[in-house]
Order: sequence, then structure tokens, then C-alpha cells
Amino acid sequence: MAQLFLALLHYPVLNRTGNTIASAITNLDLHDLARSCRTYGVPACYIVTPLKNQQALANRLMTHWIEGIGGEILPERREAIKLLKVVENLSSAAEEIIRKSGQTPVLWATTAKNAEGALSHCGARDLLERENRPFLLLLGTGWGLAPEVFDVVDAILEPISGVEGYNHLPVRAAASIMLDRLLGRR
Amino acid sequence: MAQLFLALLHYPVLNRTGNTIASAITNLDLHDLARSCRTYGVPACYIVTPLKNQQALANRLMTHWIEGIGGEILPERREAIKLLKVVENLSSAAEEIIRKSGQTPVLWATTAKNAEGALSHCGARDLLERENRPFLLLLGTGWGLAPEVFDVVDAILEPISGVEGYNHLPVRAAASIMLDRLLGRR
Repeated sequence: MAQLFLALLHYPVLNRTGNTIASAITNLDLHDLARSCRTYGVPACYIVTPLKNQQALANRLMTHWIEGIGGEILPERREAIKLLKVVENLSSAAEEIIRKSGQTPVLWATTAKNAEGALSHCGARDLLERENRPFLLLLGTGWGLAPEVFDVVDAILEPISGVEGYNHLPVRAAASIMLDRLLGRR
Repeated sequence: MAQLFLALLHYPVLNRTGNTIASAITNLDLHDLARSCRTYGVPACYIVTPLKNQQALANRLMTHWIEGIGGEILPERREAIKLLKVVENLSSAAEEIIRKSGQTPVLWATTAKNAEGALSHCGARDLLERENRPFLLLLGTGWGLAPEVFDVVDAILEPISGVEGYNHLPVRAAASIMLDRLLGRR
């Protein structure tokens, strides 16, 4: 079984008007993604931002839960938050994975839009079950990953379609549903 | 196909030490649940709290998105937030459903713990596909639904088990995963 890593990108992502921006860290994104990752056995979740003050903020939040009083009161939360790792950019996340596993990760982008030739969640699950190499699932904050990210990935995963074509799920929900579809017990 | 409604209970729920409390409204819970409900075609999501000031807070947040500037800027968010309805208690939620559908809803409790005789998500999905009556899925904030809630429900759904027995998912993630398992396209 392959290892599936996660990365939450705050840059390069789109804003509401379609411009590429660096979005702000959201405390609850970090908590929710960490808890979902811990639940589904994801070995690490990279928090990607090039902004030094945002990196410092994320690290401060994490320290509260890993070394501070937060983790003493709620050890389960500490266990989850320990999976987070703040990195400068996507390359740094990939390098971390190479350091951990000795292999270059397969990059999967996610999107809320229909993309031609997208990989189904079923197909992605099959690959994870068959292959013996790391995969890195990329999630975008704001209005999603910027086009340049799609240029460097190995595949784009199909969007989570609900029942009526509404495509405005929170990244926190999309991440948890995808982890359940790709790694959940069947 | 049955209609599945959702209710997020802020009372009666447990706190960390096992006492029954009324928990505080969390802005992001309302947004995330509304967006997940809209995605999966849930007709209404009840925000249950007996505290008047918390009801007022929830209604104020909702008004911003339904009638205020929020909804003008983000119409998809308005569509989701419109599914929320603040109610005093579980009975009021059930009465609202009776008013809407003419039938008493089947009550399903959720828990992060293993419960004897729990209904599997597969089994719950089958029931939704077969029955022609409303169902109401109860989610607890804080440390989960208080015991008295389990006494009045028709079934308890199995917990979402990840891969290693870690049972500390955010209610936002648990809700989205459950909606995907119960209502998602197969």
C-alpha cells in the first residue's frame, strides 16, 4: 500500500476574482486537516505558505498544541497536530517526502471543477492499493489551486460532486471526504 | 428515496469532563455544515440551542449571508446558509420536519464511540433508498451527544472509524463524511 501525504497550499491559489494570491492561514483548517489526516493514517500534512509571518503564526499555533498546555489537556489533538509541517513551497514538501521515503512523490491536484481526463476517486484508490511509492494530494485554499500547479502534477482528481452540481464545499470537508474515499475502510 | 435532515446539537451535549452542557455556537460549524448539506441535497440543517443569546448570534450570522452583503458577494454561500434553521430543542426540529413533510422523522444519533447494535452506514444508506419518510441525523458538538439523546432515538449510527482507531474527528468532518457515505453518488 502506498503512503498518501497531504499538502494545503496557501500559495499559489486563486482569489474570488481569479487572481493568484497567497491566502491567510486559518486556524481551523490546520486543526481539521490534522485530525482528518490522523484518522486516516496520513503520515504528514504540509502547510504551504511562502509568507514568513504566516509560517510563524502556524508554527506558534502548533507549538501550543504540541509542547504547550493544549496538548496536555487534549493529547488526541497533539497527536494530530504533530502531523503538520510548515513549508515554504511545494518543492519543499516534495523534498521532505523524498527525505522520509527515498522516493519522489506522485503529485495529485484537486479541484472543484470538472477537468478533462480527471482521475476518479476509485481509480486513485486502486493506485494507492497497488503502488509502493508516496503520493502527495494537493488542496488549495481560497478559490482553489492556481493554474501553474496543474502544470506540474501527475494527475488531477475528479471533483467531489454532490447531488445537484453545487461545487462550493469547504476545503476542510473536501479533504475529509477525499481521505475517506481514498483510504477509508471498505 | 427518503429525505435526510441534519441537526447540530449544542444542548444537551457533553463537555470534556463528561458533564452535560450547552456549548457555544461556532461560526465555521454553521458554514461548513450548510455547505456540506447543500452539496448533498439535505433539505434543512437545524442548529439546536436553548440559549437565547446564542440563537440571536446564529441568526445574525445567517442574516449577513442571506440578506446582507455576504450573500451578494457569494451567492453560493447564501444558497447554503439558507438551509440553516435555529431551533430551541430537538422536539422543535422534529416538529418543523413534520410541518414540512407531514411525517414524524426517524431519529438517528451519531457517536465517535462504538455502540452495541449500531446501524452501519451501508445499512443506513439502504434504508434511505428504500423508505419514503424523513430521517433526522443528530450530530453533537463538544464531546458528543448527552446520554439522554440516545434514549429517544430510533438508531445509533456506527462511528466513522479511520485506520487505527483514532476517534477525534471534527464534527464538521464527520458530518461531511457521513453525508458522502449516506447520500453520495455511487
